[in-house]
Amino acid sequence: MVIQKEKDAFLALLKEQSVLKNITFMMQWDTHANIPPKGLDDRLESVGYISEKLHQLNTSDKMKYYIDLFKEDPDDELLRQIALECEALYDKNRKIPQQLHKEFVMLKAKSEAVWQEARKQSDFQLFQPYLEKMVAYNQQFTDYWGYDAHRYDALLNQYEPGMTVELLDGVFPKLRTAIIDLLGRINGSDKEINESKLTKYFPEANQKELSLALLSKIGFDGQAGRLDTSVHPYTFAFHKNDVRITTRYNPNDFRESVSSALHEGGHALYEQNFADKLRNTPLAEVSSMGMHESQALYWESFIHGSKEFWEANLDVFKTHAPKEFHDLTASDLYQSSHVVKPSLIRVEADEVTYPLHIMIRYELEKALLDGEVKMSDLPGIWNEKMKDYLGVAPPSDREGILQDIHWSSGDFGYFPLYTIGMMYAAQLHHTMDKELHVKQRVRNNELEQIKGWLTDHVYQYGKSKKPLDILMNATNEPLNPDYLITYLTGKYSDLYEV
Amino acid sequence: MVIQKEKDAFLALLKEQSVLKNITFMMQWDTHANIPPKGLDDRLESVGYISEKLHQLNTSDKMKYYIDLFKEDPDDELLRQIALECEALYDKNRKIPQQLHKEFVMLKAKSEAVWQEARKQSDFQLFQPYLEKMVAYNQQFTDYWGYDAHRYDALLNQYEPGMTVELLDGVFPKLRTAIIDLLGRINGSDKEINESKLTKYFPEANQKELSLALLSKIGFDGQAGRLDTSVHPYTFAFHKNDVRITTRYNPNDFRESVSSALHEGGHALYEQNFADKLRNTPLAEVSSMGMHESQALYWESFIHGSKEFWEANLDVFKTHAPKEFHDLTASDLYQSSHVVKPSLIRVEADEVTYPLHIMIRYELEKALLDGEVKMSDLPGIWNEKMKDYLGVAPPSDREGILQDIHWSSGDFGYFPLYTIGMMYAAQLHHTMDKELHVKQRVRNNELEQIKGWLTDHVYQYGKSKKPLDILMNATNEPLNPDYLITYLTGKYSDLYEV
Repeated sequence: MVIQKEKDAFLALLKEQSVLKNITFMMQWDTHANIPPKGLDDRLESVGYISEKLHQLNTSDKMKYYIDLFKEDPDDELLRQIALECEALYDKNRKIPQQLHKEFVMLKAKSEAVWQEARKQSDFQLFQPYLEKMVAYNQQFTDYWGYDAHRYDALLNQYEPGMTVELLDGVFPKLRTAIIDLLGRINGSDKEINESKLTKYFPEANQKELSLALLSKIGFDGQAGRLDTSVHPYTFAFHKNDVRITTRYNPNDFRESVSSALHEGGHALYEQNFADKLRNTPLAEVSSMGMHESQALYWESFIHGSKEFWEANLDVFKTHAPKEFHDLTASDLYQSSHVVKPSLIRVEADEVTYPLHIMIRYELEKALLDGEVKMSDLPGIWNEKMKDYLGVAPPSDREGILQDIHWSSGDFGYFPLYTIGMMYAAQLHHTMDKELHVKQRVRNNELEQIKGWLTDHVYQYGKSKKPLDILMNATNEPLNPDYLITYLTGKYSDLYEV
Repeated sequence: MVIQKEKDAFLALLKEQSVLKNITFMMQWDTHANIPPKGLDDRLESVGYISEKLHQLNTSDKMKYYIDLFKEDPDDELLRQIALECEALYDKNRKIPQQLHKEFVMLKAKSEAVWQEARKQSDFQLFQPYLEKMVAYNQQFTDYWGYDAHRYDALLNQYEPGMTVELLDGVFPKLRTAIIDLLGRINGSDKEINESKLTKYFPEANQKELSLALLSKIGFDGQAGRLDTSVHPYTFAFHKNDVRITTRYNPNDFRESVSSALHEGGHALYEQNFADKLRNTPLAEVSSMGMHESQALYWESFIHGSKEFWEANLDVFKTHAPKEFHDLTASDLYQSSHVVKPSLIRVEADEVTYPLHIMIRYELEKALLDGEVKMSDLPGIWNEKMKDYLGVAPPSDREGILQDIHWSSGDFGYFPLYTIGMMYAAQLHHTMDKELHVKQRVRNNELEQIKGWLTDHVYQYGKSKKPLDILMNATNEPLNPDYLITYLTGKYSDLYEV
């Protein structure tokens, strides 16, 4: 039996870890939301200082001592889970030699700068040597971390514990076929969705009031969070009682700020509803980035993106909208948010075509990491796949392979999470719907029941359950792409009358 | 000769000290400007954590080693000054036993809460035992710190190095007599300043734009700072490149937000204009709180509070003011900001009567620390002095001795700085005026010359010069209350035609 004194000392160490994490998130948020331009250099130093302290703590002998003491504790399951989480962090941080990590971080800054220039000049060749290096570093990292079936699994597992190439290769092709089929039908439809009624001047202050009112409806706790403005909308959770989201305002298209606010609001609901017992432990985090994304997409697409939502909130909309918008109906608001049009740029894609952008990146990342593709062939392959999947071909590298920052930062294995999240959302929705009749709840403004269901099945657990276990426990089924296919096909066949 | 390696190590330690200070200021700013209510508890823990790290660093053996190594370095004056500043911090922190400091901090929280309740109930007796304890702690602190002529000097010197009771007792009575005389004449004047043209609805967004425009005019660098909102206006300087000020908005009286913005703007000009060589050292701070206040008051009262300022900026005012304000003249704007009326509450006082509020507190603080007054007599003495100096008597303790938080927090020696700052401002102004002809500069919108003069004589030095040395070097004279007397008498005799 472990004595109380040891437990207290471990908990104190975890609290220190939490404080350092809180401070890091606060600085990052402030850097996005508030920093004056000249303040940036000093800020980076402050962030670096705290990150190093956190790294030292996570890889300290003291930490190792408590990990070993508690990771097999039969009396306290929570403490055991915490110790295992700390061990995963410890191993991950210790397995990569300091020198290698340092080299990588330094190269990363250079690589991002070169990518920016290459994108500007629309010249992949300029960026190619850095992409080669970034791939090589990731190959080394995965060698250090180790993996079973596929090297790429180790990269996926950084963000999505338990996810594998095997699993994705089993679900993505089916999803792709279904989406390409749906897209063909939409392209053939005569239905034109008219957006012109919505793209009128809507003052920023009103957009903000509208976003705040809708956030309050979905259950975002304004006493434990804020809504601010940033170029790229983002969620920064210092801890469950201080969750800050941002959105951005387009004065001539209010839909952007509202959908971003509700997307980030979905992230925030997850962060605000961890069980209190996880406070000040490393389990007070989301289960995975895919599960995090699933909640953002759920509230954005399944709830805010439903006709019932606008039926229930038409009065809220009109309270904050200028007079010019007062003749809009719930149907106008619903339909105009669901225009499908294959595009070259991922971040501008609609929810139907988005997974196709992801699959292209997933396929190329796997091939790159396994060394199965010649670097110089990449732009051609990219363009080929764009034509095959989406029917549009990038006229230049800028609008093709050079559009995303991820690879220049050495981030491989992240892209798939967007689509994994969407599949999680659809599968959780299916089960919840059987129990709650979601449309009816939305129509009756009983969204707290939906938040309650998600808290019971997902949010409360934080990182104490792996994402695929959460899915299995909640839905009694492993990952199944059919629910997303059903959602997309049903919604858009109806919208486009195909 | 000290080797370069030792210098580098000391500079690295100072940088760590700066980073910890930056982080502390950022958290404090965020707590004032942004924090959602539920986030407060965790924030206090984070602040406590970083404060402890900073305290450890400031009192470490490593710090002591470098202090001793550099404090007599004949080759590097800057490094020598830095070492002496670090030594002052080291001594101050080490001289008070940890246990005593801890007891004090714990009692302080309780004392502030009791004061709040006592003020609510307007009952000094409730607060009296805590005031006794706070005085006793400060007596102990001053015993540990040591002092020459007066115990109170040690308290003054926390905020104003070099300031003494002897000096203040030499200037305050003369100032008091002159102000009471001026006040008598103002009270006897038939002149009524009409404020009703200004106390009309002025939307917050417009007030903010106006404040920002005027801040830009006085030379506040918006690329190295921000303007936000908080209940109590404040300046938080993380470092010279990130100086954040706040103001507050009264929708029916725009004067409040503008004068607060320019007051904090004055603080900010000081913080933004330290010499670059002081960066990441403990000298990158203001010389003293009195000198800091002098700059806030200078820009608020001497510049913004001049008729020439409104003459030069009437077009700026009209650009941001609603139509209802467009018939206002520079004279209206000037006059209506200078209503003199003795009041019970310090924070609501005008610039003529403000020093009288300060002197009452100064006299009582001295007597309290020297044990020369019976605690239970305090409210009576307070009321007596109010009647003598200001001609108004508080009807209750709430509007009398219980109005300020300072004593409940154990802060003695701070109040005098407000008036010391005003005397500094007037004396610096006198010298500057001879060189620059300030009114003409203001009228011609050449405020950068004023900022330049203050940078040359005050701002650039940061903490590398003591406040009274700055004053002597800039004006060739020790502290002299005549300049403030001349300023107040001249301005208000004219305004009130007396």
